[in-house]
Amino acid sequence: MQVVQTIAQLRAILQPCRSEGRSVGFVPTMGYLHDGHMALVQRARRENDVVVVSIFVNPTQFGPNEDLAAYPRDLERDLALLDKGGTDQVFCPSVEELYPPGYMTYVHIEGAVTETLCGRSRPGHFRGVATIVSKLFHLVMPHRAYFGQKDAQQVAVIQQMVRDLDFDLEVVPCATVREADGLALSSRNTYLTTAQRAQAPLIHQALQDARSTIAAGERRAVKVVERIKDRLAAIDDSTIDYVSVVDARTLADLETVTGEALIALAIRVGRTRLIDNIRVQV
Amino acid sequence: MQVVQTIAQLRAILQPCRSEGRSVGFVPTMGYLHDGHMALVQRARRENDVVVVSIFVNPTQFGPNEDLAAYPRDLERDLALLDKGGTDQVFCPSVEELYPPGYMTYVHIEGAVTETLCGRSRPGHFRGVATIVSKLFHLVMPHRAYFGQKDAQQVAVIQQMVRDLDFDLEVVPCATVREADGLALSSRNTYLTTAQRAQAPLIHQALQDARSTIAAGERRAVKVVERIKDRLAAIDDSTIDYVSVVDARTLADLETVTGEALIALAIRVGRTRLIDNIRVQV
Repeated sequence: MQVVQTIAQLRAILQPCRSEGRSVGFVPTMGYLHDGHMALVQRARRENDVVVVSIFVNPTQFGPNEDLAAYPRDLERDLALLDKGGTDQVFCPSVEELYPPGYMTYVHIEGAVTETLCGRSRPGHFRGVATIVSKLFHLVMPHRAYFGQKDAQQVAVIQQMVRDLDFDLEVVPCATVREADGLALSSRNTYLTTAQRAQAPLIHQALQDARSTIAAGERRAVKVVERIKDRLAAIDDSTIDYVSVVDARTLADLETVTGEALIALAIRVGRTRLIDNIRVQV
Repeated sequence: MQVVQTIAQLRAILQPCRSEGRSVGFVPTMGYLHDGHMALVQRARRENDVVVVSIFVNPTQFGPNEDLAAYPRDLERDLALLDKGGTDQVFCPSVEELYPPGYMTYVHIEGAVTETLCGRSRPGHFRGVATIVSKLFHLVMPHRAYFGQKDAQQVAVIQQMVRDLDFDLEVVPCATVREADGLALSSRNTYLTTAQRAQAPLIHQALQDARSTIAAGERRAVKVVERIKDRLAAIDDSTIDYVSVVDARTLADLETVTGEALIALAIRVGRTRLIDNIRVQV
């Protein structure tokens, strides 16, 4: 496994791969890797000749009052995991390498896909995500890029961007990896106290209950949302950011559960913001 | 020469070029070609194995009160010129092919490079330019892309975008091609009446005079601008949009002419908006 910090090194390494016609699978991450990330790496390994993973805590996707400085980091552990997972290249650039002085360019996706759900409480977040992913796509030029469905809105945003800007690559969404008790894996879970961690599985349970309710015939989104909120209320010291039923592709709010729907939520447990979601096909 | 209208056809044709390692030179245009465009094509022909030209009147770079519908078009004549000029592929897609229903993504460059000069009177123009050029870069994946210096701000915007978003290609700015009397070639010159056309060379003369003034020692931008405006006042039925002295790379206003400076202007002659510029190295 090779670890590179600069754009010039990365390009020098990937150029021969491309001219030899080898397929490149890419997993962009912010590090502090867990089994969710590693599932992406494993899938990239199975489907491509070359596996590239980036580790970069991207400042442009954090708001001024968010956890950029505190975001957990452990490069040594990450590299050991990636080496074992069969990664070929790790790209872990400095902030200055990707955003040099005088940096000015941003990719923005308009409409519900960036304005609903997390877009409402995290203004500018998806602009930062779209911008860094554009840059990384240009640097790595992957044939396939792997993203976890836990960040369902991120997947929808990237898919919209890839379609609109005609990126010549395949976005591969991968199922959320969960703890045995249902909690979706997240680097932010490390912030939870033992008591908070014990109650956190209620989030996934509330979503599963919503799926059952829909399977039993409920179609009114407002009723589904209400039921989830009732269940989340059992989590101590928590504040619901949103619970929404939206079209899985456009993320436009649905009044009636229909077609491919996404039920997504964000909740603050103590000072930790957790997200989760589930898809239903009606 | 092959002429294609769809993304799928273009990709199918260019894929083998890339895998065979042939270099691709790209000239994006809005059609109604003149010798300025053809100079770009000739240079692309000299420097690359494959020459791709796009013809697309891009709606997202026109403001609501601009000349989108009236913009001159003559595809048949353009294709004859390109064929004679040694073009390999012409891409002339429909608006729906590049902006299908539900299109949502835009590339925006902040700061002086888009906000000064034409950016002031054409809000959103460079967002449209950056967006379409991003899309075309993803579709053509050129090694080199050719732009005329007549649109100096467009060149600066594209260079900033290519640097910031890490596009792996070279932007090649090419000298403005002029009529014998100095008028910069532009598809919009066709709008001019005979009387307006007769006075239009005063634009380039005013810029050349400014260069002489600077060569003679003048460094105060305000004096240079004043002198140009005095000369432009001789053009009947005209309104000056701007005359500016800016840093050639960042396009930030200069008080003192220094380094690599760009002297740029836009003037409305009757209902036709003309632009021109000159570079000075102090």
